[in-house]
Amino acid sequence: MYFPSWMRQLYRGLSAQPAWASPRRSLVLSPHRRLPEFSSFIARTNTCGELRSSHLGQEVTLCGWIQYRRQNIFLVLRDFHGLVQIVIPQDESAASVKKILCEAPVESVVQVSGTVVARPPGQENPKMPTGEIEIKVKTAELLNSCKKLPFEIKDFVKKTEALRLQYRYLDLRSFQMQRNLRLRSQMVMRMREYLCNLHGFIDIETPTLFKKTPGGAKEFLVPSREPGKFYSLPQSPQQFKQLLMIGGFDRYFQVARCYRDEGSRPDRQPEFTQIIDISNVFRNTEIGFLQDALSKPQGTVKAICVPGGAEVLPVFLKTSINWNSPVAELIMEEQRLEFIRLMQVQEDDVILLTAGEHQKACSLLGKLRLECADLLEKKGVVLRDPALFSFLWVVDFPLFLPKEDNPRELESAHHPFTAPHPSDIHLLYTEPEKVRSQHYDLVLNGSEIGGGSIRIHNAELQHYVLATLLKEDVKLLSHLLQALDYGAPPHGGIALGLDRLMCLVTGSPSIRDVIAFPKSFRGHDLMSSAPDCVPPEDLKPYHIQVSWPADSESEKNSLNLHQES
Amino acid sequence: MYFPSWMRQLYRGLSAQPAWASPRRSLVLSPHRRLPEFSSFIARTNTCGELRSSHLGQEVTLCGWIQYRRQNIFLVLRDFHGLVQIVIPQDESAASVKKILCEAPVESVVQVSGTVVARPPGQENPKMPTGEIEIKVKTAELLNSCKKLPFEIKDFVKKTEALRLQYRYLDLRSFQMQRNLRLRSQMVMRMREYLCNLHGFIDIETPTLFKKTPGGAKEFLVPSREPGKFYSLPQSPQQFKQLLMIGGFDRYFQVARCYRDEGSRPDRQPEFTQIIDISNVFRNTEIGFLQDALSKPQGTVKAICVPGGAEVLPVFLKTSINWNSPVAELIMEEQRLEFIRLMQVQEDDVILLTAGEHQKACSLLGKLRLECADLLEKKGVVLRDPALFSFLWVVDFPLFLPKEDNPRELESAHHPFTAPHPSDIHLLYTEPEKVRSQHYDLVLNGSEIGGGSIRIHNAELQHYVLATLLKEDVKLLSHLLQALDYGAPPHGGIALGLDRLMCLVTGSPSIRDVIAFPKSFRGHDLMSSAPDCVPPEDLKPYHIQVSWPADSESEKNSLNLHQES
Repeated sequence: MYFPSWMRQLYRGLSAQPAWASPRRSLVLSPHRRLPEFSSFIARTNTCGELRSSHLGQEVTLCGWIQYRRQNIFLVLRDFHGLVQIVIPQDESAASVKKILCEAPVESVVQVSGTVVARPPGQENPKMPTGEIEIKVKTAELLNSCKKLPFEIKDFVKKTEALRLQYRYLDLRSFQMQRNLRLRSQMVMRMREYLCNLHGFIDIETPTLFKKTPGGAKEFLVPSREPGKFYSLPQSPQQFKQLLMIGGFDRYFQVARCYRDEGSRPDRQPEFTQIIDISNVFRNTEIGFLQDALSKPQGTVKAICVPGGAEVLPVFLKTSINWNSPVAELIMEEQRLEFIRLMQVQEDDVILLTAGEHQKACSLLGKLRLECADLLEKKGVVLRDPALFSFLWVVDFPLFLPKEDNPRELESAHHPFTAPHPSDIHLLYTEPEKVRSQHYDLVLNGSEIGGGSIRIHNAELQHYVLATLLKEDVKLLSHLLQALDYGAPPHGGIALGLDRLMCLVTGSPSIRDVIAFPKSFRGHDLMSSAPDCVPPEDLKPYHIQVSWPADSESEKNSLNLHQES
Repeated sequence: MYFPSWMRQLYRGLSAQPAWASPRRSLVLSPHRRLPEFSSFIARTNTCGELRSSHLGQEVTLCGWIQYRRQNIFLVLRDFHGLVQIVIPQDESAASVKKILCEAPVESVVQVSGTVVARPPGQENPKMPTGEIEIKVKTAELLNSCKKLPFEIKDFVKKTEALRLQYRYLDLRSFQMQRNLRLRSQMVMRMREYLCNLHGFIDIETPTLFKKTPGGAKEFLVPSREPGKFYSLPQSPQQFKQLLMIGGFDRYFQVARCYRDEGSRPDRQPEFTQIIDISNVFRNTEIGFLQDALSKPQGTVKAICVPGGAEVLPVFLKTSINWNSPVAELIMEEQRLEFIRLMQVQEDDVILLTAGEHQKACSLLGKLRLECADLLEKKGVVLRDPALFSFLWVVDFPLFLPKEDNPRELESAHHPFTAPHPSDIHLLYTEPEKVRSQHYDLVLNGSEIGGGSIRIHNAELQHYVLATLLKEDVKLLSHLLQALDYGAPPHGGIALGLDRLMCLVTGSPSIRDVIAFPKSFRGHDLMSSAPDCVPPEDLKPYHIQVSWPADSESEKNSLNLHQES
């Protein structure tokens, strides 16, 4: 539970103001940080956001984008430290400077030199950190002119996501993207400092051109120059992490690139909600639908308690004697008491109850729970404070799940290297489906942000799980099995999903808002139009050819035409 | 020139002793670093390398690998902080502990608990940091047994590189690999701290699944699920770096993964040596071979001066009146004086002179220079102190070179985005082959460790270079050309080759010694045997099939057999 503390700290350090409003506080976190120094090769003497009354009289050179112009008298210059007001000279002798500053389109890049002067009394702008001063310009240079933009660089201007992705470099100039990516850089740096400097972790890069993982999900293939041989882009540094542990790097971390070719892979993780299993209470019930559910092999009866729910929800069961439910009369007194005890029901609580096949019952109850929370929050009950970071560890996952297409066979709930729970090892040989794993997930404000596990370090046990229980081809993993035999220490780890974590921290609706150059939903780069066609001669060295689907011959031709046009 | 200073600092912080000998000094660089703290989930109370006389009497739990055993009385336990001596109990009551510690093979992982005691007088080992103490063991547990190793984990044991790569996880336990990778992690961390914390750079990850770069060298292809469409793994974040500058991230860096499918790509960089051009001295010479050389279009006469070379080299030209050379008599007095002035020749210096086509003359003189240095060093003259870091910037590269296969056409000396030297811009339209570039290389102790350039920020100029001078298809780069039109600021950058830099810092002969899991020369992973065969059904979603070379049908079958065997 290390991360919560630094994350809270980090968050406290963040200002809710835009970057321009208080760049030192919002973008620079620790007090010993200073603004970047400039070398002799850089023209600017200061950044646009840093000038104050204390700079009055100084000669400065600033570079930036033209944010806007007012009546050819004022111009607001922007860089990513803030905004500053430039006074365009009006006298004859400065005609050339005036021409440059008045004719350059908005978002052009200019360099100006001049003196920091106080704004005339009454013209100060207290909302602007540089609002006490302005720059009396002497010289100006147009560094690069800007063509007419496809959209305005203003956060309040609505644009479609496709347009934002196509002109990503313009979208990156928005306050929102600047803040998100700068914060991401700082958070990753804090993580590194914590791991490397405080706890002696070693940052090691592992290869991304590797070999296909058996049983893994979709991995991108990379053809090699040897006929028929392919690398694959691994989904995670899974095997390398373990090999580093065996290699004696006792504290390793990496900010790793993971590749997942997600066609439409469903989320295979079983649903987990805070539920209470009340099957035993109703084992001998006379209520038909509960009886039905419990008679099936995976059948269960689950319930959640919504504290104070009676005030806002249509009441279903009440703890008072008159249980407000059509099924209440069928519940026997002893069942009722046991039920109240189990659920710790209080006055005005609402109990929601589901019965049916385990997975479906859990999933449904999870959704009901979120619905209730939404309803209660609409009525003004604060349940989920967005300013709070609520962390939760999820543990005791099953090690195996029945295969979807053949429930009599098992597959790994997470991956075949996860160690069984020490108390359940004996079940591996008798009832493997009942074995709990040493997998753990970390949940932040209801979203999974990370997961990991203690791994199997015993070669024999790993072989048994792979070959006997999962029926995998162990030859593909012979290097790992062999490595476990050469003094592998007990080990485990965790991986955090940086993209999702950053979404939660910045309050972004999509991970595309915390990634500099994201792909679209279909995996396209809308800016460069990757993936793209490749001429057949470029495929030759890799000994591959395209198998055109029969119905796409016309498309193929049109693509070729497009290439040649 | 930022890097030299921190690198010297870093190097000064390094001890030449092995990690076991002084772990705090050799592996932990800054004084405020502490040894890792341990959480309640970790069994060990201390690391093997940290125990001293000050710990006498403490109860400790240690985990580590069995390094060696002496007469079933002592056992040396190793982790990656050092070595410590364990006393195996000999009394009847501790028979089970003795059995574990005496029977576990070397390199097995054990956990021991016991008391830190002083070694008997005279048995201290001053060469070992923990040599004053030993551990009187009470309990022991075998955490994982080790099979017979393919080679001993000792640095002095010679093993082939193929064996080292096949059992990389064992090779990683060697002192050398531990030191190299831990140092690499620390150096990269120092770079990040310097860039992020001191100079406000932003760490941004850019995509590795991108679009083929026109005119770039070999890029790996990644088939997509759309028929005939491919991503490519970019050789560098080249275009993204520029797009980030345009997007307003004014100080960006990344520790980037670069992919280069190097079949046998020759080093295209022209040779650059410190030479002095003396062509003009001999413009009117009567010496036949110099005349010949200078009459050709690319002809030149170049010379280097080897200070003090006369003492060890067979003398060619001497500054004294009796120039010891068969050609000396052909050199006119005024040529001789001009030559001495240009070369700043002193008594006992040796002048080496080449004449011929520019590139060949430079290349030959460069080799002669290294040969001379080798000769002088063999005689005891210290020229290249390996403890010193000598940095050199190489500038004024040509922007274009004649194409090897068609010298009347031009290609970029580096890449088409490099800006021309400001003084040479006018030549772009008349004599582009004479334009110098704003490319710079950074050389450390004779090896190129980095390079970069100021980029073209003007869309028109970039279009002219791409379309008119290089005859590239500009449509493939339309997104970049368009981006330059929307207020691109002047910008530039540099990339360091971390692998090569680490080789120089650690004195490793191969970059494979500073990478955790390197590929072999032919691009194979000898541990997992990647790249590997992929069954045809796995190729289907990517709409590709293997084009088997006609003569490899037999190989194909044997591969398939191998897969099925």
